[in-house]
Amino acid sequence: MVRVGILGASGYIGGELLRLLLQHPDAEVTAATSRRHAGEYVFRVHPNLRGVTELKFSPDDASKVVESSDVVFAALPHGESVKAVPRIADAGLRVVDLSADFRLGDKGQYPVWYGYEHPRPDLLEKFVLSVPEINRDQVRGARLVSSPGCMAITAILALAPLFRERSFGVDRDHVVVDAKVGSSGAGGKPSLATHFSERYSVVRPYKPAGHRHSAEVEQVLAAMAGERVKVSMSAHAVNMVRGILVTSHVFTAGPVKALDVWKAYRSMYAGSYFVRLVRDKQGPFKLPDPKLVVGSNFCDVGFEIEERTGRLVALSATDNLVKGAAGNAVQSMNLMLGHDEKEGLTMAPLHPV
Amino acid sequence: MVRVGILGASGYIGGELLRLLLQHPDAEVTAATSRRHAGEYVFRVHPNLRGVTELKFSPDDASKVVESSDVVFAALPHGESVKAVPRIADAGLRVVDLSADFRLGDKGQYPVWYGYEHPRPDLLEKFVLSVPEINRDQVRGARLVSSPGCMAITAILALAPLFRERSFGVDRDHVVVDAKVGSSGAGGKPSLATHFSERYSVVRPYKPAGHRHSAEVEQVLAAMAGERVKVSMSAHAVNMVRGILVTSHVFTAGPVKALDVWKAYRSMYAGSYFVRLVRDKQGPFKLPDPKLVVGSNFCDVGFEIEERTGRLVALSATDNLVKGAAGNAVQSMNLMLGHDEKEGLTMAPLHPV
Amino acid sequence: MVRVGILGASGYIGGELLRLLLQHPDAEVTAATSRRHAGEYVFRVHPNLRGVTELKFSPDDASKVVESSDVVFAALPHGESVKAVPRIADAGLRVVDLSADFRLGDKGQYPVWYGYEHPRPDLLEKFVLSVPEINRDQVRGARLVSSPGCMAITAILALAPLFRERSFGVDRDHVVVDAKVGSSGAGGKPSLATHFSERYSVVRPYKPAGHRHSAEVEQVLAAMAGERVKVSMSAHAVNMVRGILVTSHVFTAGPVKALDVWKAYRSMYAGSYFVRLVRDKQGPFKLPDPKLVVGSNFCDVGFEIEERTGRLVALSATDNLVKGAAGNAVQSMNLMLGHDEKEGLTMAPLHPV
Amino acid sequence: MVRVGILGASGYIGGELLRLLLQHPDAEVTAATSRRHAGEYVFRVHPNLRGVTELKFSPDDASKVVESSDVVFAALPHGESVKAVPRIADAGLRVVDLSADFRLGDKGQYPVWYGYEHPRPDLLEKFVLSVPEINRDQVRGARLVSSPGCMAITAILALAPLFRERSFGVDRDHVVVDAKVGSSGAGGKPSLATHFSERYSVVRPYKPAGHRHSAEVEQVLAAMAGERVKVSMSAHAVNMVRGILVTSHVFTAGPVKALDVWKAYRSMYAGSYFVRLVRDKQGPFKLPDPKLVVGSNFCDVGFEIEERTGRLVALSATDNLVKGAAGNAVQSMNLMLGHDEKEGLTMAPLHPV
Repeated sequence: MVRVGILGASGYIGGELLRLLLQHPDAEVTAATSRRHAGEYVFRVHPNLRGVTELKFSPDDASKVVESSDVVFAALPHGESVKAVPRIADAGLRVVDLSADFRLGDKGQYPVWYGYEHPRPDLLEKFVLSVPEINRDQVRGARLVSSPGCMAITAILALAPLFRERSFGVDRDHVVVDAKVGSSGAGGKPSLATHFSERYSVVRPYKPAGHRHSAEVEQVLAAMAGERVKVSMSAHAVNMVRGILVTSHVFTAGPVKALDVWKAYRSMYAGSYFVRLVRDKQGPFKLPDPKLVVGSNFCDVGFEIEERTGRLVALSATDNLVKGAAGNAVQSMNLMLGHDEKEGLTMAPLHPV
Repeated sequence: MVRVGILGASGYIGGELLRLLLQHPDAEVTAATSRRHAGEYVFRVHPNLRGVTELKFSPDDASKVVESSDVVFAALPHGESVKAVPRIADAGLRVVDLSADFRLGDKGQYPVWYGYEHPRPDLLEKFVLSVPEINRDQVRGARLVSSPGCMAITAILALAPLFRERSFGVDRDHVVVDAKVGSSGAGGKPSLATHFSERYSVVRPYKPAGHRHSAEVEQVLAAMAGERVKVSMSAHAVNMVRGILVTSHVFTAGPVKALDVWKAYRSMYAGSYFVRLVRDKQGPFKLPDPKLVVGSNFCDVGFEIEERTGRLVALSATDNLVKGAAGNAVQSMNLMLGHDEKEGLTMAPLHPV
Repeated sequence: MVRVGILGASGYIGGELLRLLLQHPDAEVTAATSRRHAGEYVFRVHPNLRGVTELKFSPDDASKVVESSDVVFAALPHGESVKAVPRIADAGLRVVDLSADFRLGDKGQYPVWYGYEHPRPDLLEKFVLSVPEINRDQVRGARLVSSPGCMAITAILALAPLFRERSFGVDRDHVVVDAKVGSSGAGGKPSLATHFSERYSVVRPYKPAGHRHSAEVEQVLAAMAGERVKVSMSAHAVNMVRGILVTSHVFTAGPVKALDVWKAYRSMYAGSYFVRLVRDKQGPFKLPDPKLVVGSNFCDVGFEIEERTGRLVALSATDNLVKGAAGNAVQSMNLMLGHDEKEGLTMAPLHPV
Repeated sequence: MVRVGILGASGYIGGELLRLLLQHPDAEVTAATSRRHAGEYVFRVHPNLRGVTELKFSPDDASKVVESSDVVFAALPHGESVKAVPRIADAGLRVVDLSADFRLGDKGQYPVWYGYEHPRPDLLEKFVLSVPEINRDQVRGARLVSSPGCMAITAILALAPLFRERSFGVDRDHVVVDAKVGSSGAGGKPSLATHFSERYSVVRPYKPAGHRHSAEVEQVLAAMAGERVKVSMSAHAVNMVRGILVTSHVFTAGPVKALDVWKAYRSMYAGSYFVRLVRDKQGPFKLPDPKLVVGSNFCDVGFEIEERTGRLVALSATDNLVKGAAGNAVQSMNLMLGHDEKEGLTMAPLHPV
């Protein structure tokens, strides 16, 4: 039984970590911190856990967490994690960080995208950005792991095989990543933008340009392509709570065949339980849709080819709180501990929902 | 490992039985029949199960199901079940029926509510209408079990303790059961009424009077009260897929105290994991809401008292496909087999969703 | 051209008053006050009005409003209106108040329901609670008018004819009013309860007992019945922005015929354009549904009879911001000015929406 | 008073034409045909019009429509319109066609995109594809007008000024048009894909490549650019009934300034009431969102520049049934008749909704 601590357990990602880890066969949650809710029952904040656990939030006290845990999940806001995580890492614990603070390998990118100088570039070198379907072996050996942003991992899983397969000649300058995101990605803090009357039925382009997740996607794709890739990302808020659909539009040097694209995906994701290739001939379920992965750790991936314009449209869907965050983090922990990566993560999606 | 067959596995309740039973630690699904989809992969109809199972629908052949199963779940439409189930029951298999065809103990009620003479009144006597939180011991010993309608079980769990406690003097002639139901309760068949453009954002009173589930509720409440109870049920379609909220308005002979109502619920549901009593002082989660049980087998129950009008408002919420159907059925099977009733049913609800 | 001022124009009801009055053929909006947004363009807060008006919010200065207006609409919170309205009334202007501060005729009810002693009982006597379909003549002659709460007016329009017709013998002690309400009724202020991730897909019983609108409904129904009526109201938040469905469950002394109920409604609402009687034989539009009145001043009313339980279920639907608030207020103004009550209010609902 | 006939009046676009034309100050609806619903009251199919009109659907008899009308709106399916419209055009009536059958100027495109040889290329030459904000003068003089597809007109209004302004050097080979569409665009016919339980909460990529509206957009943009433009369109179904957001991603030859883009839009749309330029500094309404145009004829247009990738993201939002169909058609009729284009179309959007 591995002892697990969760920093920032009162947010939506924290809640999802609790849902997964409280039911994980090999984990025991020993601490769930929350500055604001310390002392309260966890189920007051995460009402789904009423009757499931009598756990209370503990105060934001890193030394206590260090004492009681073998693995620490940090679900803190960007800028907070970079303050809290180093002492845990320095204490030798395994860490899975869910913020952006340890995702970028190049310290020079932090001032550009996040507006601060990274205080611990040494840690940046040790952290592995974990997408197990791509770098499983690296994650297996790691003690410090970072989980990508929800849009980033969803885009990466659709795009990586296309850049890996050099024969497609994917144009590295015109990569359009158009993301449609549910409200839970924005967290649990009320505001006018998230007020139900204003948020219901929207298709709101909340970040059409300059999205920070671009940096993570570019980092991984460049590793795949062996050359720099420019990612043009746009993010839209849509009318649902859980889920992301990423539509990636890329252009190929010449015509590509569906069969070859299919093979590129197959060869990359053979043996990866959590990536489902979805490309039926017809019907409402023929391509990825976040509705069909709700509650699960699946990432559905599919594609279509438009010969006329030389375009390949790759589609990928996740539950942003699971494969886009807590699920990928638990999968990473499983690997770090040498366990089956599926442990505690095989719940099927709900349908219809 | 108990061998399980599912009749009518292509509907929403069938899909939910599959979700639960494919992940049940002690069950093996040996047959999932569908007249229309025989031979097709289950995941073409239930896209959540893609990657989870390679099972195909089998034809609607009762004798094959009898051969390959120890327990049979019948998720057939009313009127179909009564044709298919008898031969399975006669063959000595355990049966959990999810239709209305074996719910009413009094054969005289079938012509009144369902428009047919029941062909097997002998079976009606043997079937137990299963609400484990109320008649667990009966279910434990039964070989033939019927699971109540989704609205019925949700109403029953809120109302039974109030009628059981005679000191409240609940008025048996003015029991208003106002139900708000998600779309999945209406099944998977498209129609103008379920066409998205017509169904989105509705609060549609689709059955304000004469709802058939009244009969089941009256049957159970009369057993509790020791006297006839008249239930005035109204059903509304609301803008969600999963879930039921039942608002039950009853009137008491004199003033009742919250503490006593609380005790009545406690005493009935002590030891019942799947009923959660919800009555916080404040906050958006202070009373039952179907949003907070999605995906789980929980039934949340709460209440408020309005002294001025002598009214007690009981509130209950379920996921209509789980505690309102497939979950209650699996719970019943667990009991019939002498297992822990929670087996395979402890998944926490999703939140937010 | 009547000069119109709006107090509290930045809320949702204020916005709806602006939408209606800016397009009203005989009205000119001369002032739209907002403490918080004074000096800002109206369309920054009400984005639907971008391109429609260049009006700016004016400060909360009653004397200026008095100078520039002939009629004043007060869309202030309860407790605020009672402070601002008297000086406008005393100045001799026509007032349409949309708060609860002048709705109840009996000053003794204010401490009970709103927790304060009413400072101007003399005004209470002068204010007419306006439901034009019921007391059109009174409204026509009034200078001071109060518009009922959205749930109240919706319930009243369904129930008044039933109490007016004494031969039905409606039981005055068991009147259950079960309301399902969209989010806009809760106003524009963000909170955890209205945070999209928490509010989406709910059926949340936010006020199962003790709702303040009970008092208004009882006041009007008592006038109809000639005797005291006890109203048992429960309010639920449902997953939509605009609209209310009220399901009113009443019990009759003996059997009543559908034809007679139909006549009772007809005789009361003949000549009332904004009440539509809806009772088709079949189809998804056979009974009232708030979806079908969105954007309009209609109140749809229908009913069903359940002989077995002696119950009559009356159903009524409004757009809470129009007939439930701003539309009824403008209709009242039209009458006060001796105009056609439909003026500026004949926009059809949107469908589908 | 112009006499107006509507062919195919029972669909959603037909219903919206009725809503607009029944309330149009200078139009009288003399015929509303429906093969399936002939003889029925219009309000049985379009329940919003209950109480608004006593009109009945008339049979599908072109000669009667010709007799009784001055202008005919054809809201028939593709392939049907091309059969019905010619005789009306030949009879000398004014026609506004809402299908694709007369949109493309080049008859050679019909076999490519629609799979049929166009039987009346002579008419193709006479029909004007009407986007009044772009070719108002042409529409004014026309007797035969075609209204673009809802996605097409929404994309065109955002993109045309960018191609018109040659100094931007917009890359004509990498134009990505990513559309998010409400359910009403798919019409009123039930299917599994539109079944509420399957359609709720989706982000479903229903046509990621090869969308037919590409042809219309390319036709207009080529006219603007003076050269061929390749449009890469993808269409997604999202969780709402009304509305389209089009996100257009284009790449410019060098850096462009926001001010210059702004000017390009301004210079094109000065004097166009129905295009609103939306580009605030902050807040949830800072960019176009279909939620904010519901029920109105507005097209909101905005943009952002991503210098790093040389990308310009243009955003445009319409109510697909209004500016995307019936509203644009009525606006076109107004122009054809020499009236103010805004006549009968100035209703403000609803907010919140």
